Amino acid sequence: MPLRLDARDAGFPAAFRSLLGMKREVSEEVDDAVKAIVSAVIAGGDAAVIDYTSRFDGLSLTPDRLRVSDEEIDAALDRCDAEALAALRVARERIETYHRGQKPTDWSATDALGVTAGWRWTALESVGLYVPGGTASYPSSVLMNAVPAKVAGVPRIVMVAPTPRGETNPLVLAAARLAGVDEVYRIGGAQAVAALAYGTDTIAPVAKIVGPGNAYVAAAKRRVFGQVGIDMIAGPSEVLILADRDANPDWVAADLLAQAEHDTAAQSILVTDDPALADAVEAAVERHLATLPRAEIAAASWRDFGAIILVPDLASSIPLVDAIAPEHLEIEAADADGLAARVRNAGSIFLGSHTPEAIGDYVGGPNHVLPTARSARFSSGLGVLDFMKRTSILKCDPAALRALGPSAIALGRAEGLEGHARSVAIRLNL
Amino acid sequence: MPLRLDARDAGFPAAFRSLLGMKREVSEEVDDAVKAIVSAVIAGGDAAVIDYTSRFDGLSLTPDRLRVSDEEIDAALDRCDAEALAALRVARERIETYHRGQKPTDWSATDALGVTAGWRWTALESVGLYVPGGTASYPSSVLMNAVPAKVAGVPRIVMVAPTPRGETNPLVLAAARLAGVDEVYRIGGAQAVAALAYGTDTIAPVAKIVGPGNAYVAAAKRRVFGQVGIDMIAGPSEVLILADRDANPDWVAADLLAQAEHDTAAQSILVTDDPALADAVEAAVERHLATLPRAEIAAASWRDFGAIILVPDLASSIPLVDAIAPEHLEIEAADADGLAARVRNAGSIFLGSHTPEAIGDYVGGPNHVLPTARSARFSSGLGVLDFMKRTSILKCDPAALRALGPSAIALGRAEGLEGHARSVAIRLNL
Repeated sequence: MPLRLDARDAGFPAAFRSLLGMKREVSEEVDDAVKAIVSAVIAGGDAAVIDYTSRFDGLSLTPDRLRVSDEEIDAALDRCDAEALAALRVARERIETYHRGQKPTDWSATDALGVTAGWRWTALESVGLYVPGGTASYPSSVLMNAVPAKVAGVPRIVMVAPTPRGETNPLVLAAARLAGVDEVYRIGGAQAVAALAYGTDTIAPVAKIVGPGNAYVAAAKRRVFGQVGIDMIAGPSEVLILADRDANPDWVAADLLAQAEHDTAAQSILVTDDPALADAVEAAVERHLATLPRAEIAAASWRDFGAIILVPDLASSIPLVDAIAPEHLEIEAADADGLAARVRNAGSIFLGSHTPEAIGDYVGGPNHVLPTARSARFSSGLGVLDFMKRTSILKCDPAALRALGPSAIALGRAEGLEGHARSVAIRLNL
Repeated sequence: MPLRLDARDAGFPAAFRSLLGMKREVSEEVDDAVKAIVSAVIAGGDAAVIDYTSRFDGLSLTPDRLRVSDEEIDAALDRCDAEALAALRVARERIETYHRGQKPTDWSATDALGVTAGWRWTALESVGLYVPGGTASYPSSVLMNAVPAKVAGVPRIVMVAPTPRGETNPLVLAAARLAGVDEVYRIGGAQAVAALAYGTDTIAPVAKIVGPGNAYVAAAKRRVFGQVGIDMIAGPSEVLILADRDANPDWVAADLLAQAEHDTAAQSILVTDDPALADAVEAAVERHLATLPRAEIAAASWRDFGAIILVPDLASSIPLVDAIAPEHLEIEAADADGLAARVRNAGSIFLGSHTPEAIGDYVGGPNHVLPTARSARFSSGLGVLDFMKRTSILKCDPAALRALGPSAIALGRAEGLEGHARSVAIRLNL
């Protein structure tokens, strides 16, 4: 049974706070192991990576077989299911189109004093994309991470993906090819993250590492941060559905379960002003679960972290939505656009009854790498800007320096930084 | 004596790598102490903050005296040096004008299939700004952190600044007033970071914490990351000056020392194609040091981390610049604009002989919070985007879902996520 809350109950504020405070991430004690692996890769390079790959993935490699060859990728494309491959092409095209609009523009202007100020965006010189092995090896995630990097203009995109016992997901390699990934290595875990960050004889280092992974990968990314950039550390996925009496309970239940099937730690929340819909959705969830292949996972997520919150009216639920700051927000209600406009904190919003979140996972166009665990209060989904950086530019002519210099000198002295003041004064003969 | 390197020497590549690998940060073992402080503030709230403030700052407070009153800020403004206050107004105005251009625009479009996709930027709901006490209490940093947040539209900007033994820097309070900071608290250290992240009875929590601080503050920011957003953890400051024979050695030396006077761990590097300039700058540094108030700090930085690199020509130095990825890059050379255009990695660029970096520290307009320690390879200086986040928006009408649905279903099934596929199929009666 999921949690049932009613915003009109006296105990609601406390119950809602406890919902917000729910810990869904299992913190595994992997830091020491990861520290040793990263150090070993820094010291041992390819040999260390090969050693860990043999131990953890049961795969015996040599330096020249770390990289997946173009021929292997060609062969993988041939093995792909034609329908899935066609869908992947649709997805790639739509993701690219959406993200092209995110390319930022440079700016520069000279003001009345003669000061030219501006900024310039440049692509990162190289990016590493981590792709998990096993069941969490999603070709859609390859596109969602690599396409924005490509749109940004990153000249070198490297992918690492473990292939336990040599098994590769051909669609993952196909996605890499479609997205324009430049190099693919069949390695994973903390050793792959360390190789990307510090480089080996075979693998040149990258400037930033993105992509999802297990606790070891997450710990390794945290550890190499600073040496390279990293993206967010994603937590379990989550959806909040705002629905009114006109919503179809079967559809709402399907969407709650699409989220819940990801992970026993995923979270699906329904917020509604209609008690009858709440009951109907709860019943529909049970019906769907009877035939869902991943029912065990989805049922555990729904039981342990699911919630149904009754509110007097949907407008009054906006502060609750902002406090939860859901990764995915679906609004299946009469005034979906009006409600959406009032939401401050959400990673992504899906409007209306014909926009199930799964469309956004694959082919909508927007990115599916989104802030989890309330971090939509302060961060955004992955995009082109994550693969670029901004350099500010300043240029004074002699007259501009004469005009601005005295203020800089005054502030330098006020801050006790006489050297700052002098570097200006010396040019003005002050 | 700073390091002297010549790019034509056989040993240059190794020497340059070792320059890149130089560790300038002192890693202090403060994590255990910070962990205890954060836990105590979560559990004890105001009382814990007051207790630590008494112990660490020698300041005895009550909950109602945590906040600096408007009257105290008025009084601080009256105590400020008039020239410094006027300069602060100039700085605020110029910083605001520059950052206004960074406000991103929302976007949305409906494509031929009937899919509406777009994104919306919203300001963070609240931001906390840490301002160090003592000698590193810089009013200019208050402006550089608070003005972009204000431009972004953050409705609640909170500042914390320790006041050891009750001493406040009036210009810091004046900067807070000028920048539109909404609340100021006279607390600091890890306890202030914890109060901002988790809230107390007196201090409501914020969504993100920015601003510089000592090792305790940095460790506390790392620890509360996730609960709130944080900005980068800044390392010691650095400048790289590209100069040719026409550069004025006295001016170049002054700029190297303006950087070096920040911190014994700061780094100043000169790259030139002119051996005579290299010698003249080195001599000028010694002359300047004789009269610089912070000569002891600047001399240590120049001795331990300073470097002069001779290159055959400045164009060939661009790969070195990109590898160093300096926080500040000054180009005092004939073709400054042309050289700048070829640089990929730099936090900020200062063009020509009349743009000393100190102008950018105070009144140029661009932000002075910039990526250090080679992180300009993958990150940008502080700006308006750091105080906003993007929500993606997707809306399908029934026809759009019919057009896109089959691709989503194919990919859901290919990834083993039947629940995803069903959430689409159920709407299409598939």
